[in-house]
Amino acid sequence: MKVSILGTGLMGGAFARVLMAGGHDVTVWNRTPERCAPLTALGAAQASTVREAVAASDLLFAIVLDQDAVRELFEDQVLEGKTVVNYTTGTAAQAVAQQSFLTARGARYSDAVIAAYPDDIGSRDALIYYAGDERVHREHIDVFTELSGLAQFVGAEPGNANVLDAAWVGGFHCVAMGGFHEAAAFAMSEGVTIDTLADSVDYYVEFLRGVLKESVKAIRESDFGTDQATLDVYLSGIRSCRQSMIDAGQRAGLVSANLHSLEIASAAGHGSDSLYAQVLTMKA
Amino acid sequence: MKVSILGTGLMGGAFARVLMAGGHDVTVWNRTPERCAPLTALGAAQASTVREAVAASDLLFAIVLDQDAVRELFEDQVLEGKTVVNYTTGTAAQAVAQQSFLTARGARYSDAVIAAYPDDIGSRDALIYYAGDERVHREHIDVFTELSGLAQFVGAEPGNANVLDAAWVGGFHCVAMGGFHEAAAFAMSEGVTIDTLADSVDYYVEFLRGVLKESVKAIRESDFGTDQATLDVYLSGIRSCRQSMIDAGQRAGLVSANLHSLEIASAAGHGSDSLYAQVLTMKA
Repeated sequence: MKVSILGTGLMGGAFARVLMAGGHDVTVWNRTPERCAPLTALGAAQASTVREAVAASDLLFAIVLDQDAVRELFEDQVLEGKTVVNYTTGTAAQAVAQQSFLTARGARYSDAVIAAYPDDIGSRDALIYYAGDERVHREHIDVFTELSGLAQFVGAEPGNANVLDAAWVGGFHCVAMGGFHEAAAFAMSEGVTIDTLADSVDYYVEFLRGVLKESVKAIRESDFGTDQATLDVYLSGIRSCRQSMIDAGQRAGLVSANLHSLEIASAAGHGSDSLYAQVLTMKA
Repeated sequence: MKVSILGTGLMGGAFARVLMAGGHDVTVWNRTPERCAPLTALGAAQASTVREAVAASDLLFAIVLDQDAVRELFEDQVLEGKTVVNYTTGTAAQAVAQQSFLTARGARYSDAVIAAYPDDIGSRDALIYYAGDERVHREHIDVFTELSGLAQFVGAEPGNANVLDAAWVGGFHCVAMGGFHEAAAFAMSEGVTIDTLADSVDYYVEFLRGVLKESVKAIRESDFGTDQATLDVYLSGIRSCRQSMIDAGQRAGLVSANLHSLEIASAAGHGSDSLYAQVLTMKA
């Protein structure tokens, strides 16, 4: 398969190496041409202009600084018959704009968000989200899977890859990490050692996995009944937990925000529902 | 082993059944004596008074309504040579008071917090925290492990079992669940289906496990350097994620609280440290 990679920074370089190792014909272009040297040494063809890179392959990967740089790459190009996969960091709104810009020039467009480090490119466990033109995904799934074992198509809306990434990384992962550090600071202030706390990491990670899957099922089926602890039971437990943290001199910002969310859900009439009903009252 | 169980509600009943199945001599007492019938049918001896229950065994498990009920149980008893394990729900401060009250009457005291449902008692994966007298834990670890495969001693401070429970359940688990529901509400408001979101549950749970373990190591070694993304890089990503949520009409309470925590950590000079340095600035 012929692939041109526009942008050979850490991530673009990792892409090029994995694809060459997979036997593909890789053409590289970089604004600073010398940066391509380690890749041409491995067998990549070097394009001296964007036009050459576009001519060399029908499949074009853009991994540059930002969305303005993507636009600069392609503004003078004719892209009939070409497919652009945009791995450059941006927002959902920029993905929508980029799709319009590129399809107007004749290209098919896929917007990708990389949820992995450069070192993980090529691994079975690495995750990249793809949104936009589903035909692109179906036709190139083999190449995509070489780059990351998890190559998930997340919808025709080009912003969806960004939305998924923001939801999982910013909304879930970073909040969970914030909660852990708030919990750890509290426990240590009360004389619990980090090692005692650490003994339960696997237990609570597995517990979380089970409960997340229960919640997905509840949301999918819009069934928020429960014969276990109700939202109001959690509300009361969290209020008491927050008070213990405050009494211990902690800020408890995330626990307070969580308490507030549950208070809003309870006031909206979900006190006897499962904890998962909080998803219904997250709007501003 | 002779064990008396004071309180045969859902949890106390589960304890009695598991211990009888393990071949122990179980004596039960309940304020409403008829509630003991299912257990005596299985071979438990029934004490008609607390005094009888105390006389029957040196190992006494209290699983009653609240800490006032625990005090009522024992206020007229002589407890020389007895060991009281208090599984009743309470706070860290109540655990401290209960230890004073019971050791003054001659008992050894262990304060336990059950992080499991009644149905899980007796399983290898169930978790119960024990704090207080470490000799009690060493002597009775076999019985404790029959009740829950994970029977963790968490320190001589009797409130520590409560602190661990509040930290993990209120501080970590519930905050992580709040983050997930905030993320899910946002993603669905942008047209992402719950099934698309669900496809990444295992990925992000495993990612979280790895990062939590890295954080534990950083905190243990007080080493908050990083050659990966710095706290300020996360701060900027989370600010942008929060803005996407707000633009989509979401409240974003937990993401906002997390942003605030990181702003405080950055302002305190930890912007170039790892994300884990936030643990240093959680005090009020």
